[in-house]
Amino acid sequence: MSTTTATAKSVTSDKTGAPFRFAERAGRLKPSAIREILKTTEAPDVISFAGGLPAPELFPVEDFATACRDVLTAGAEGQAAMQYGVTEGFGPLRQWVCEHLAEAVNLRCTPDQLLITNGSQQGLDLIAKVLIDPGDVVLVEDPAYVGALKAFDAYEARAVGIPADELGVRTDALRHYLRTSATRPKLLYLIPNFQNPTGVSTSPERLREVAQIAAEYDLPILEDDPYGRLRYGGQAPPALASLPAAAGRTVYLGTTSKIMAPGMRVAWMVVPDRGLYEKLVPAKQAADLHTSTFTQRVVWRYASRPGMLDAHLRVLVDAYRRRRDVMLDALARHLPEGCSWTRPDGGLFLWVTLPERIDAVELLQAAMAQKVAFVPGQPFWVGEGVGNTLRLNFSNASEERIDEGVRRLGEVIRRA
Amino acid sequence: MSTTTATAKSVTSDKTGAPFRFAERAGRLKPSAIREILKTTEAPDVISFAGGLPAPELFPVEDFATACRDVLTAGAEGQAAMQYGVTEGFGPLRQWVCEHLAEAVNLRCTPDQLLITNGSQQGLDLIAKVLIDPGDVVLVEDPAYVGALKAFDAYEARAVGIPADELGVRTDALRHYLRTSATRPKLLYLIPNFQNPTGVSTSPERLREVAQIAAEYDLPILEDDPYGRLRYGGQAPPALASLPAAAGRTVYLGTTSKIMAPGMRVAWMVVPDRGLYEKLVPAKQAADLHTSTFTQRVVWRYASRPGMLDAHLRVLVDAYRRRRDVMLDALARHLPEGCSWTRPDGGLFLWVTLPERIDAVELLQAAMAQKVAFVPGQPFWVGEGVGNTLRLNFSNASEERIDEGVRRLGEVIRRA
Repeated sequence: MSTTTATAKSVTSDKTGAPFRFAERAGRLKPSAIREILKTTEAPDVISFAGGLPAPELFPVEDFATACRDVLTAGAEGQAAMQYGVTEGFGPLRQWVCEHLAEAVNLRCTPDQLLITNGSQQGLDLIAKVLIDPGDVVLVEDPAYVGALKAFDAYEARAVGIPADELGVRTDALRHYLRTSATRPKLLYLIPNFQNPTGVSTSPERLREVAQIAAEYDLPILEDDPYGRLRYGGQAPPALASLPAAAGRTVYLGTTSKIMAPGMRVAWMVVPDRGLYEKLVPAKQAADLHTSTFTQRVVWRYASRPGMLDAHLRVLVDAYRRRRDVMLDALARHLPEGCSWTRPDGGLFLWVTLPERIDAVELLQAAMAQKVAFVPGQPFWVGEGVGNTLRLNFSNASEERIDEGVRRLGEVIRRA
Repeated sequence: MSTTTATAKSVTSDKTGAPFRFAERAGRLKPSAIREILKTTEAPDVISFAGGLPAPELFPVEDFATACRDVLTAGAEGQAAMQYGVTEGFGPLRQWVCEHLAEAVNLRCTPDQLLITNGSQQGLDLIAKVLIDPGDVVLVEDPAYVGALKAFDAYEARAVGIPADELGVRTDALRHYLRTSATRPKLLYLIPNFQNPTGVSTSPERLREVAQIAAEYDLPILEDDPYGRLRYGGQAPPALASLPAAAGRTVYLGTTSKIMAPGMRVAWMVVPDRGLYEKLVPAKQAADLHTSTFTQRVVWRYASRPGMLDAHLRVLVDAYRRRRDVMLDALARHLPEGCSWTRPDGGLFLWVTLPERIDAVELLQAAMAQKVAFVPGQPFWVGEGVGNTLRLNFSNASEERIDEGVRRLGEVIRRA
């Protein structure tokens, strides 16, 4: 088994003369940097901006307890919730997801296009399992969600990073790659809303261009949307999967993890391509038969109670908006000159660029000594990466701790 | 993507002159025959012996409702149950599994050798993901559990069937294969207790020989034990993984599915080989991050209440023993001459051999017309298979329906 290695960046240029850098990586599983960091930040005196954890005190514990009571009744529902189920997922939950997506992101789908998975991570794994042969190219935004890179790594994909800016993936670079590359990519992977790790949203214009380019080059798209409902400003765009040029070629991933509770591990993938769906179902069956019938029914009982989820989303959005604002304010007050950061309209993360001489992995050692944690940008970059970047989470810590943590971080940066 | 194809059987013979037939298959995912059959047997007027479903009316619904209440408290436990967790699994559950295995199957292990999975099916998938490269040989009993064959298929393993008899896998054939084969198998996969599909248990002598042969040939073993606690007669042997010659080279799979509830999707793998464990954890992380923290905690609350599981097991064993006896009695009364069947000491299944001229797939069509269902033996055989075999489940239907279903089956066979 080989380990992941970043290859030298290939430098090309488009017809305007601007250079594009397409980083690449190809390899198999290696220990996760994030995972190891998460382990060291569990101590209660550490202020951690490292994980992607929702605020635990906002979990709807009581409402889920009610949903459990409703499911585990003495009759047929209780028995069915404890029995094996079909691989595709619990029918009424799939029906609810269709209604939810039509309303929330203008995506029209039918229950027979839906596959319930153990978190979106399993959606990434199944797509890779079914589509990727060793050496196949997957296009990703650079930097990209590290969990997706690891899912692709496991099947020995060649991930190629398409440069991104404050409007999302650069469509000129995407087009350039497709026009000039000898290899035909198997997939384009994107998080259009509040991307992990940068917090950047792809602009509606860019989304339309992506759809158009994908149609031109017959390129399948994997749209990952875990954060779309956590919007603190601006207007929600329709899903990429809902745009005419992208519909039919886009698999859309959604999840309960950020809007209800990640501990349930209930997510969904919308697969309009029938042939692909019919490969994904046996792949899921071989992987774990089906997702817990019990958690699927509990989630359905919770989500289908009128007004329940919307009320909870209002609580989350209010709290996370305040935490984002506290973090942005603290960054402006505490970080030294030469630092910059993104200002996300939603989601859980923002992205800091440090002065070039500072290496974020080294900075983390110093930060841990001051009991503040973050994730260095390095594992998110497709190739060698940019050493002076880091990701901060603002959903997990309280407002007070966010301010204090950023103060400590500023001090550590100043000293570096 | 190629489809699964059975290759011609290779015929060899050992030094005593007895011929061995080693069937082979190599391929990738194809639709599951069992799955399609299960779909057609959902109608309430069909008496189904097809699935491997526990008796739903025996699920401990009320005790799980209590466990849910205990987990979803207002304090830290409720929040932790809804949050992300570590990939390895919930610590107290892993501790409980260690205590359970020491007592039940004499297997000594530590929590850091345990990985919690979504059913044993995920254990099969992860082992294959980490160990198998396309074309690698996996040795299995022939016939074998079809879910394992599908997990191995997904990574393009070459499954090679080792003949088995009423004492389990034939160790003379196993030794012969290892001595004469040019390829080095990656794995030997076995269900020693009440095998799926045959119901046969591997004798203690054979288990010791398997351990010895594995040590001689440095062969890793995958021991799958979903049914071991469901014993209706005879003495429970220690786990293969606990035998000195096999310890260290055996991965042991256990699950809540048959002793609590499959809908929870909580199972465990014991991995004494540290290097292998450290590959499995990132493989699981890339596949779905972790198993539901909520269901893990619910299972732990249920299982760790003193006496709770043991009392439930007594109920299950009593009921399933009666159902097995009713089925054996009905088979003797209703099946025509020329049929034979296994008499399992536990588990969920028995295995019928029909007169040679009868094809079980064709028989199923006729049986469905009479509203009785079973699984033809064909998908369990590694190669072309033996057409006149079928699997019957005796755990799911009531005693009355078992008797009536076997009566209908006998009629259908008589007509064939």
